[in-house]
Amino acid sequence: MNTYDYIRDGAEIYRQSFATIRAEADLSRFSAEEADVAVRMIHACGMVDAAQYFRFSPDFVQAARAALAAGAPIFTDAEMVARGVTRSRLPANNEVICELRNPETPHLAADYGNTRSAAAIHIWLPRLAGSVVAIGNAPTALFHLLELLRDGAPKPAAIIGMPVGFVGAAESKQALGENSYGIPFAIVEGRLGGSAMTAAALNALARPGI
Amino acid sequence: MNTYDYIRDGAEIYRQSFATIRAEADLSRFSAEEADVAVRMIHACGMVDAAQYFRFSPDFVQAARAALAAGAPIFTDAEMVARGVTRSRLPANNEVICELRNPETPHLAADYGNTRSAAAIHIWLPRLAGSVVAIGNAPTALFHLLELLRDGAPKPAAIIGMPVGFVGAAESKQALGENSYGIPFAIVEGRLGGSAMTAAALNALARPGI
Repeated sequence: MNTYDYIRDGAEIYRQSFATIRAEADLSRFSAEEADVAVRMIHACGMVDAAQYFRFSPDFVQAARAALAAGAPIFTDAEMVARGVTRSRLPANNEVICELRNPETPHLAADYGNTRSAAAIHIWLPRLAGSVVAIGNAPTALFHLLELLRDGAPKPAAIIGMPVGFVGAAESKQALGENSYGIPFAIVEGRLGGSAMTAAALNALARPGI
Repeated sequence: MNTYDYIRDGAEIYRQSFATIRAEADLSRFSAEEADVAVRMIHACGMVDAAQYFRFSPDFVQAARAALAAGAPIFTDAEMVARGVTRSRLPANNEVICELRNPETPHLAADYGNTRSAAAIHIWLPRLAGSVVAIGNAPTALFHLLELLRDGAPKPAAIIGMPVGFVGAAESKQALGENSYGIPFAIVEGRLGGSAMTAAALNALARPGI
């Protein structure tokens, strides 16, 4: 007869998880507030070594938190990111918006000769000013956001740039890091990233502390 | 003026991504069918080195595909997994079911002294026989599934065991690998896993090829 010895209490699982991460991860590069975000991102991916790729602009955590507290909407390229945001943590019942399945999006993609993930950003434009943008999947979405900002689009309050993968992910995040058009940002350098890390960053930003 | 040089065609991005993964990853341990699943899992996490932790029971891909083709429902512990399944790839318009937000689940969690993720499995039981189970977040869910199978619960056709993290993830997957009660399984050993990899495995199983 197999017996299974494991912790069944959710709060205790979180506590031990975060303690393990803080014991093992090198968070010395980060401010206390950045470290809280980093801990949740590590928790989402299961790798303490991922922290070496995290990069926050100095004003990122404060800018994102202020925007959320003021009721800013969150725009994301990926439905998995939207689904991963813990609504009860958000400070102002903030909207979390993904327009990937908007019926208009395929038409925009054809018009602009880009992916649906990138084209959907055009639907964000009327409310983009002061919003929190979280790109957790598609490098094309991050590249196209940068193109629109270059061409004078309204500026979000903060950008989470964490697309994952093998084609354009590293390059799009590098481009954001080199010129964010003055907008506070967080990135994961290289190929790592994805919807879980992105949602974890949003959940960390939603309120101070862990 | 910044210019951004990137690939805007979704199909070409997939093609180059999968080609890069096959060129860089060591897939020699896997059958051709397992390698297709592994490639999509690597694609989801951005790490070719993750392949060393993938483990498939010999009958896994065939059993999972046969179940899906026969119309089996997919049960998952995580809404992000459910959201990540590409419905149009599924062979039989299969249901994708997550009961985490079922109003009954908090009561079951209190009754069984376990997390909501684990308790929600009790709602699966009437349809568990022959289903495809995908645990992509909570070690408690995988441990509790094993407890129920030990105690005679109906057997799924296949189990994807890929919870992520620092408390119980490695241990729960090890337990599944050591005794799956005769059920074909796929795991990611250690701390890695998560909703994106789990959804990617389901999307690979949904139809042959990439």
